[in-house]
Amino acid sequence: MDMIAANTSPWLLARRTAKMNPSAIREILKLTERPGIISFAGGLPSPKTFPVAEFEAACAKVLRDDSHAALQYAASEGFGPLREMVAAALPWQVDPARVLITTGSQQGLDLVAKVLVDAGSKVLVESPTYLGAVMAFTPMEPEVISVAGNDQGIDLTDLRTKADDARFLYVLPNFQNPTGRTMSESNRVALSAEAARLKLPLIEDNPYGDLWFDSPPPLPLTTRNPDGCIYLGSFSKVLAPGLRMGYVVAPQAVYAKLLQAKQAADLHSPGFNQRVIAEVMKDGFLERHVPTIRALYKLQRDAMLEALRREIPAGEPDSTLSWNTPAGGMFLWARLPKGMSAVELLPHAVAQGVAYVPGAPFYADRADPRTLRLSFVTPSVAEIHRGVTALAAAIGVYAATLKDLRS
Amino acid sequence: MDMIAANTSPWLLARRTAKMNPSAIREILKLTERPGIISFAGGLPSPKTFPVAEFEAACAKVLRDDSHAALQYAASEGFGPLREMVAAALPWQVDPARVLITTGSQQGLDLVAKVLVDAGSKVLVESPTYLGAVMAFTPMEPEVISVAGNDQGIDLTDLRTKADDARFLYVLPNFQNPTGRTMSESNRVALSAEAARLKLPLIEDNPYGDLWFDSPPPLPLTTRNPDGCIYLGSFSKVLAPGLRMGYVVAPQAVYAKLLQAKQAADLHSPGFNQRVIAEVMKDGFLERHVPTIRALYKLQRDAMLEALRREIPAGEPDSTLSWNTPAGGMFLWARLPKGMSAVELLPHAVAQGVAYVPGAPFYADRADPRTLRLSFVTPSVAEIHRGVTALAAAIGVYAATLKDLRS
Repeated sequence: MDMIAANTSPWLLARRTAKMNPSAIREILKLTERPGIISFAGGLPSPKTFPVAEFEAACAKVLRDDSHAALQYAASEGFGPLREMVAAALPWQVDPARVLITTGSQQGLDLVAKVLVDAGSKVLVESPTYLGAVMAFTPMEPEVISVAGNDQGIDLTDLRTKADDARFLYVLPNFQNPTGRTMSESNRVALSAEAARLKLPLIEDNPYGDLWFDSPPPLPLTTRNPDGCIYLGSFSKVLAPGLRMGYVVAPQAVYAKLLQAKQAADLHSPGFNQRVIAEVMKDGFLERHVPTIRALYKLQRDAMLEALRREIPAGEPDSTLSWNTPAGGMFLWARLPKGMSAVELLPHAVAQGVAYVPGAPFYADRADPRTLRLSFVTPSVAEIHRGVTALAAAIGVYAATLKDLRS
Repeated sequence: MDMIAANTSPWLLARRTAKMNPSAIREILKLTERPGIISFAGGLPSPKTFPVAEFEAACAKVLRDDSHAALQYAASEGFGPLREMVAAALPWQVDPARVLITTGSQQGLDLVAKVLVDAGSKVLVESPTYLGAVMAFTPMEPEVISVAGNDQGIDLTDLRTKADDARFLYVLPNFQNPTGRTMSESNRVALSAEAARLKLPLIEDNPYGDLWFDSPPPLPLTTRNPDGCIYLGSFSKVLAPGLRMGYVVAPQAVYAKLLQAKQAADLHSPGFNQRVIAEVMKDGFLERHVPTIRALYKLQRDAMLEALRREIPAGEPDSTLSWNTPAGGMFLWARLPKGMSAVELLPHAVAQGVAYVPGAPFYADRADPRTLRLSFVTPSVAEIHRGVTALAAAIGVYAATLKDLRS
C-alpha cells in the first residue's frame, strides 16, 4: 500500500526544498521544554516587559476611532503615520517613502533574498550569524559564506578575499544573536569604507540596538552610506514579538522591488497591528518604556556573570569554560574547554535541569563545536543562579565521562 | 552626476525581479481614487460587515487572560485552538495538524510557489484568474499557462493538452475573483477524476465560498481528494482583511516543507491576531454573522442587476454590454460590445463618475479586452444605481467616439 501511495503521489517538490530544513534550534528547544527545566535556550523577550495595559488602551482606541480603515485592506507600503514615526526615530535622515513595514523583521530578510539573490549567488555572513537569516535566504538558493571576525567586528582582510561577486554582506552589529558581541566604532568606519570600495551592499539587521546597558552602541553602518545599505528594524524587542511588526529602510535602487515582493508575499502587514503600534508609540512612549527593559536585562546579565564567576573554576580558555560580557541585548556567548562539544554536553545539562543552545547551528560553515549561547532575559535572577550552578555541575559530569572514555 | 551614481551603485538585482511588476490593478485604483467617483473597482469587503464590537471585546479578553502568550513569539504552525476550529469547520475530515495559519491566504500562495515551483516550471491557471495568485507565483519564475473554461468550470479537453509536467492547476471554484463564476458540481466531479488520473495537484483557493446568496456552492474539490490538493482559506471576507489571517490545509507530502517555508518567511503569523480571531469565532459567531454579509451582498448584487437591466439596451452580446449573474461573492463580470476595449472605456467612465477594473490584467495570456470586473459590495444601493447609469452613459460617449473615428 505504501509503495502504491508513493508511486501515485502527484507532488513534485521544487528543487530549493531539498535545502530547506527544520530549524535545528527549534528541534533543540523541543527537547528542552521539559517542565522544571531552567531555560537559557530561548530567544524570547521577557514577557514582564510587554506593555499590556498600553496595548489594551490602543486596541480600544483604534477600534473606536478608526475601525473601518484598521480592519480593511491597505497599502503594501504600510500605515503612513507609522512609517513617519520610524523615519523620525532613526539617527540619520530617512525619507518615510523609503520605509516599508514588514510582518516582523524576519519578513524583511525574506524580501531581501527574493530581490537580491539568484540561485548560486554568493552571500556573505558573519561567523557565527543569526540562523533565521540563513533560513530566510536559503529558499533563494544562495551560496552562504562566512567571513571571519572577532569581538571587534568583521575581519576586513578575510572580507576582501571573499567579496568578489557577493550580492551582499549580512551583519547584525549590535548585541548580536547569537554572540551578544558589538561591532566597534573603528571597525564600522573601516567596514563602511571597504564595502563602498568593493561595491558590496550591506544588509544591516538591528533588532537589539536599543537594548544597551551602559551606553548606546556606535551609530548604524547605514548612517554612513544609506545608498549602499538596507536596514532592518523590529518592534519585537522593544514592544512585543506577538504583533509581528518590523520594517525595512531601503535605498531607491531596491525599494520598488522590495515593495513588489512584499505585495506578492502577503499584500500588506496587518493594518490593525500597525495602528496599535503607532498608537502605543505616540507621545514618546518608547523613551519611557525602553529604559525599563534595559534595566531588567542588565540586572539579569549581571546575575549571569556573577553566577558564572562563582561557579566556573578559573583557568586558561582551553582548560575551563570562558565567556564574553555583552554590552546589551539578550545573549551571552560561552566556550567549553578543549575537547568538549556543546552538543554532547546538552543531555547532561538537561539532566541537571538547565538548557541552552549549542553554538554550532549558528555557523554557516566551519562551526566551533565548543560554543554555546546563553540567554539571560527569560529566567528570573534566582533561576539564573540555579541554572548556572546546574550548568557547572553538568560540565563536571561531562568531563568525568570524557575522562572515563580516555582511561 | 547621474551617470556616476548609476555606475557606482552596488546593487545587482536578482533575475526574478525583471518579471516582478507593480500590480496593474493597484495602478488603476490610484487613477480612480478621485473624490466623488463611485467605485466598482475595489475588491474590498464592505466595512459595514466588520464585527467591530466583537473585535473590541476579544482584544480586551485576550490581553486580560492570555497576554504573555499572545504577545510572545509562537509556533510557526499557528495557534492550536484556531487550527482546531479551522479543521472542524471544513466539510471533510481534516486533521488540525494539517492546518497551517498564514498571514492572509495571499501568504499561502507565496508558500505554495516556494515549495512547488522551480524556475521554468509549468503552472496552470484559469482564464481569467486571480491576479494576486499570479503575482505570488511570479518570483519563483514559473511559466504560467491559462486553461480554457466557461461558466461551468474548466475545459477538460484543453486541460489534457496542457497538463504534462505541470506542477499544479490553481483554481478558485466559488464566486471567482474576477468573474464571480462558480464551478458546477459535474465539472468538479470530472475535474477531480481527471486531475487524479493526470497526477496533477490542485491548489484550491476559496476565500468567497461562504458568501453564497441562495444556496451553498458544491463541495470543495479538496473534499474529493485531500491528498492531491492544497486548500487555501481566509478570514478576510467573513471577519475582516485588516488582521491578515488565512490558512492552508495541505497533505502530509507537502505540509512539512510549507511549514519550513512559513518559518523562514515570517516565523509565524501574529499570535495576538490568531487569538482574537479564535475568541470572536468561538460559540458559533460566524453562523450568526455570515448570513448578514450574504444578505447585504445579495441586496447589492440585485441592485446592480436591476440597474444594468434598466440602463443597458437589450441586444446580442456582440452589440451591447452583457453580464453574468454571480450566485455569491463580490464580483460581477461584464463584456463590452465587439470592437470596444474596457481599458479605452475607463477614462470615459471616470469622466462620468464611475470606476471599474478592466478584465485584461486578469488573463495570464490571450486577454479578452472587452471584459470588465464590477464589484457590488463597497458602494451603497443608491450609489450602485447612479454608478451603473454613469457606466451606461460612458459606453454611449465611447461608442460615439468610435463612430467618429470610423466615419
